[in-house]
Amino acid sequence: MIEQLTEKRTHTCGELKLTQVNLQVTLQGWVHRRRDHGSLIFIDIRDIHGLTQIVFDPNESEDLYTRAKELKPEYVIAVTGKVRPRPAGMVNKNLATGEVEILVSSFKIYNLAKTTPFPIIDQVDATEEHRFQYRYLDLRRPEMQKNLIIRSRTAKIFRQYLDSQNFLEIETPFLMRSTPEGARDFLVPSRIHPGKFYALPQSPQTYKQVLMVAGYDRYYQIVKCFRDEDLRADRQPEFTQVDLEMSFIDEQDVFKIVEEVMLKVFDSILHVKLQRPFPVLTYEAALEKYGSDKPDLRFKMQIHEISHLVAESEFKVFSATVKQQGIVAGINLKNGANYSRKQIDSLNQFVIELGGKGVLTAKVTPGEWESSFRKFLSDAQVVEINEKMESEAGDLLIFIAGEKWKTLDQLGRLRLKLAEDEALIKSNQYEPLWVVDFPLLEFDQESNRYNAMHHPFTSPRREDLEMLETNPLQVKARAYDLVINGYEIAGGSIRNHQQEIQMRIFNLLKIDVQEAQEKFGFLLDALKYGAPPHGGIAFGFDRLVMILAGCTSIRDVIAFPKTTSAISLMDNSPSQVDEAQLRELKISILKE
Amino acid sequence: MIEQLTEKRTHTCGELKLTQVNLQVTLQGWVHRRRDHGSLIFIDIRDIHGLTQIVFDPNESEDLYTRAKELKPEYVIAVTGKVRPRPAGMVNKNLATGEVEILVSSFKIYNLAKTTPFPIIDQVDATEEHRFQYRYLDLRRPEMQKNLIIRSRTAKIFRQYLDSQNFLEIETPFLMRSTPEGARDFLVPSRIHPGKFYALPQSPQTYKQVLMVAGYDRYYQIVKCFRDEDLRADRQPEFTQVDLEMSFIDEQDVFKIVEEVMLKVFDSILHVKLQRPFPVLTYEAALEKYGSDKPDLRFKMQIHEISHLVAESEFKVFSATVKQQGIVAGINLKNGANYSRKQIDSLNQFVIELGGKGVLTAKVTPGEWESSFRKFLSDAQVVEINEKMESEAGDLLIFIAGEKWKTLDQLGRLRLKLAEDEALIKSNQYEPLWVVDFPLLEFDQESNRYNAMHHPFTSPRREDLEMLETNPLQVKARAYDLVINGYEIAGGSIRNHQQEIQMRIFNLLKIDVQEAQEKFGFLLDALKYGAPPHGGIAFGFDRLVMILAGCTSIRDVIAFPKTTSAISLMDNSPSQVDEAQLRELKISILKE
Repeated sequence: MIEQLTEKRTHTCGELKLTQVNLQVTLQGWVHRRRDHGSLIFIDIRDIHGLTQIVFDPNESEDLYTRAKELKPEYVIAVTGKVRPRPAGMVNKNLATGEVEILVSSFKIYNLAKTTPFPIIDQVDATEEHRFQYRYLDLRRPEMQKNLIIRSRTAKIFRQYLDSQNFLEIETPFLMRSTPEGARDFLVPSRIHPGKFYALPQSPQTYKQVLMVAGYDRYYQIVKCFRDEDLRADRQPEFTQVDLEMSFIDEQDVFKIVEEVMLKVFDSILHVKLQRPFPVLTYEAALEKYGSDKPDLRFKMQIHEISHLVAESEFKVFSATVKQQGIVAGINLKNGANYSRKQIDSLNQFVIELGGKGVLTAKVTPGEWESSFRKFLSDAQVVEINEKMESEAGDLLIFIAGEKWKTLDQLGRLRLKLAEDEALIKSNQYEPLWVVDFPLLEFDQESNRYNAMHHPFTSPRREDLEMLETNPLQVKARAYDLVINGYEIAGGSIRNHQQEIQMRIFNLLKIDVQEAQEKFGFLLDALKYGAPPHGGIAFGFDRLVMILAGCTSIRDVIAFPKTTSAISLMDNSPSQVDEAQLRELKISILKE
Repeated sequence: MIEQLTEKRTHTCGELKLTQVNLQVTLQGWVHRRRDHGSLIFIDIRDIHGLTQIVFDPNESEDLYTRAKELKPEYVIAVTGKVRPRPAGMVNKNLATGEVEILVSSFKIYNLAKTTPFPIIDQVDATEEHRFQYRYLDLRRPEMQKNLIIRSRTAKIFRQYLDSQNFLEIETPFLMRSTPEGARDFLVPSRIHPGKFYALPQSPQTYKQVLMVAGYDRYYQIVKCFRDEDLRADRQPEFTQVDLEMSFIDEQDVFKIVEEVMLKVFDSILHVKLQRPFPVLTYEAALEKYGSDKPDLRFKMQIHEISHLVAESEFKVFSATVKQQGIVAGINLKNGANYSRKQIDSLNQFVIELGGKGVLTAKVTPGEWESSFRKFLSDAQVVEINEKMESEAGDLLIFIAGEKWKTLDQLGRLRLKLAEDEALIKSNQYEPLWVVDFPLLEFDQESNRYNAMHHPFTSPRREDLEMLETNPLQVKARAYDLVINGYEIAGGSIRNHQQEIQMRIFNLLKIDVQEAQEKFGFLLDALKYGAPPHGGIAFGFDRLVMILAGCTSIRDVIAFPKTTSAISLMDNSPSQVDEAQLRELKISILKE
């Protein structure tokens, strides 16, 4: 029988301890588990704060005991009773409330529950589709509750810190102009202006720059952004950014703000003390040392180029590659000399699948190498390579020869694979770094033009300005990425605040004056009326929380995610809509 | 000549005082105003924090003085110099920095500025359209900066308080299922699923209820919502809600949270001490006393119904109205007896324009009335009416006779007009109240069915449940509105957490099982799996900030508002989009 709520809880289900023994308490929550033990009924009552064991004893009340037999998992109840210590052997050290239980003197049922399609436990044996369909049950699992609590706490730390640094939270529009550039916009048809559309923001970029022109000095926002992409595992059509922008600053000011907030977040959420300042690597050095512009620094295994040591060697694979402008480079798997033929074959296969030619390996023995190509190298060359690669007896040296960037990329991926295979990464280790000096532009063969590597509002380095038109691919951007554990967590740049330089960049990007005016006219106009030097950064909030929560999918830190095909399985969106709605919008659906 | 930023400001433009005299400082900001006084140039340099006067003296540096002549309004500059007291007669008491000035020893120009289309001052003589087009300049005006600072601070107070009360901030989706109910949804075509659409949320209502079912206990979010309405002055297609929901609570718990946060907001932003608990009026009493469900309590002038006093009078206008089930009611304009014929005519005209028959007035003199219908009333009736309406000599009594709700509405509007005409409302006065006991349903003549007055998830009062089907219009809802100064600031309700009651209400609303399942299936399903008693409220954040900032338009507290025809004049959205974009979305525009 369902009863009305008229009482208040005195405590949550996560807080009773021995200090509350003999206190009369009222808890409210869900029946988590029921165990009928001999003549007693034990129930764990659950809320977001934890579990508390409650006991129904027929010697205390036959009636309560009988009624308690009706209680089924996920019923919503209130219980009142006295806190008592658990008997010596029954203490549960793994539970915050594990030293006590409540002897129930009265209870109420607020609501019943059907049998859930999967149990409300962390080690749930349900497909992700099933979990998404019943997200209201999936979100009851303690792990998901922990994730969303971490998310909420992380947002709070950002806000508190940014508030303390005089950042203003300012909301930018969700219904804005479509300026397809990079990813596709989601469009929103206008009913009042038939045939016209708003777009959902891919980021608040232009608006936050306008706020700097308007004098707001320090802006931030934790805000949803939208990209209509073909989804990958790690992407969602809507995602959350912590977006900030500052005036009268340079890179160091942004780094300071970001590093300080990261120190606070990691300390508060994980009790991990990060060290400031974070190391800085140039884009080029990141690729050369780690084969990635988002290197994972939790383990060393740097890439060493040995082209100059083997250019003249008799080993044709090496010397011919160097002659054809390629490189020879390798990594040192410490203590890897015991790798079997089969293991090495699998590394070779891994690289071939990446499009490479495979690997060449050498096992380091005291003063020598075991390697198929040892005989083509001089003793001096082996010594030099050993020195370069910090070889010690027992190591496995793994080389790849080929085109520079492809080779570095393959070695970078091999490095990550080996770290995983060999469990080189400790848990609870976090290695942040800045990657800087990205190229301003990249050349797109397909469209035969330059694209902005970051976005078109990024400032070139001052010292590179003069070669903007003469040698554009050499121009470095004032852009920076924050990388943690191999993930890009945040990216930003110092922007073009001078209209003239912005127009030179649009020119390079083959965006002509009219197109620029149509797409970004208000920002270009704004730059004419006294724009201060400014820059900023945006965090991929979902990914940061994923790392903090120790998850492997951003979907586990989003309350209501979409599937990889952009469907919400809970509300079945997107869905068909009434013809009348479309008529009002003056649009129709094209048939195949 | 534009120079690069290499220095940091030592202070903002709003903080220098006599205590900093002789200090060498660097400020960065905008040239606000330049005055050439005899042999000196004075410039006010501006940032979001304030203005500081800087001085160029040719006796100190002829070169600086000459260069300073180039400085024009809105140039972005950095200045370095020594703080000195202003000469005795030159102190500006109205300026935080008005006691000092900076004698400039060096300066830089970071950026130039064209002449702005309107001056950057508060008393700007520009149309709203012009201001919106150049919003980046409009937002430089100190008043607009003050408004957005109040907005940011108000959000911060909400967050801090709700955090302190264990509310979790949880993000709900922006791309959700279209469930047109009440207002129109904005639709978002899906490219990956051609012919299907997402909708932008009108509110996170169903999702926040699902979060309660999922056990999140206390949720909040400051979030954009969307309604595709024909715009009125006070509406925007996108608007911001402070949305919250709680489990295991009743109305009083919601009131406590809301009142406490309102006390903090008004104290912190306006230094106004509101008193708890806020008064509570039933919907019916609000209409009967103030002719409005959002009464302005900053002035009294209550409506008094005198039907029973005049039902038997010889004045046919009164007695016939009462016989026809109408009412006679009036308000007392204190000290209004000196109203001229013309003034009274204009009140009459006001009511006629509202669709009424006009007003009947009586001037109260010592022991008598001056009134055209005095002769039809007995002395006893006049005494009784005087008593009821608390008449004193010199008052003007204003009566309307007619259908009850129309009459109350007309008197309510007349009451507001008189308060404005007579300046009865003090500035900096804030009168909050709760309006409760709304009818659950209203009958819509046009569609010949009941509509939910709040929304269909609102719980009926328990004691009214049994007449849900027999006498539905008498059923009161567990809904509540927070009203301040005549504005609805927040609205919410205790929800239906029992699926069976929710279905009975859908039944009354003629939403059949299939339609309910299609539109709200996930919520209905969720209610079957152990939904706790829950309720919540949502604040209209824009309107609250408007009141706090003392503005009359929400557009003045939104950084980038749309016009009343839903256009953003800055980026010219909505706009036409490429045919290719529409082809990808598999939609086309219907021609007229």
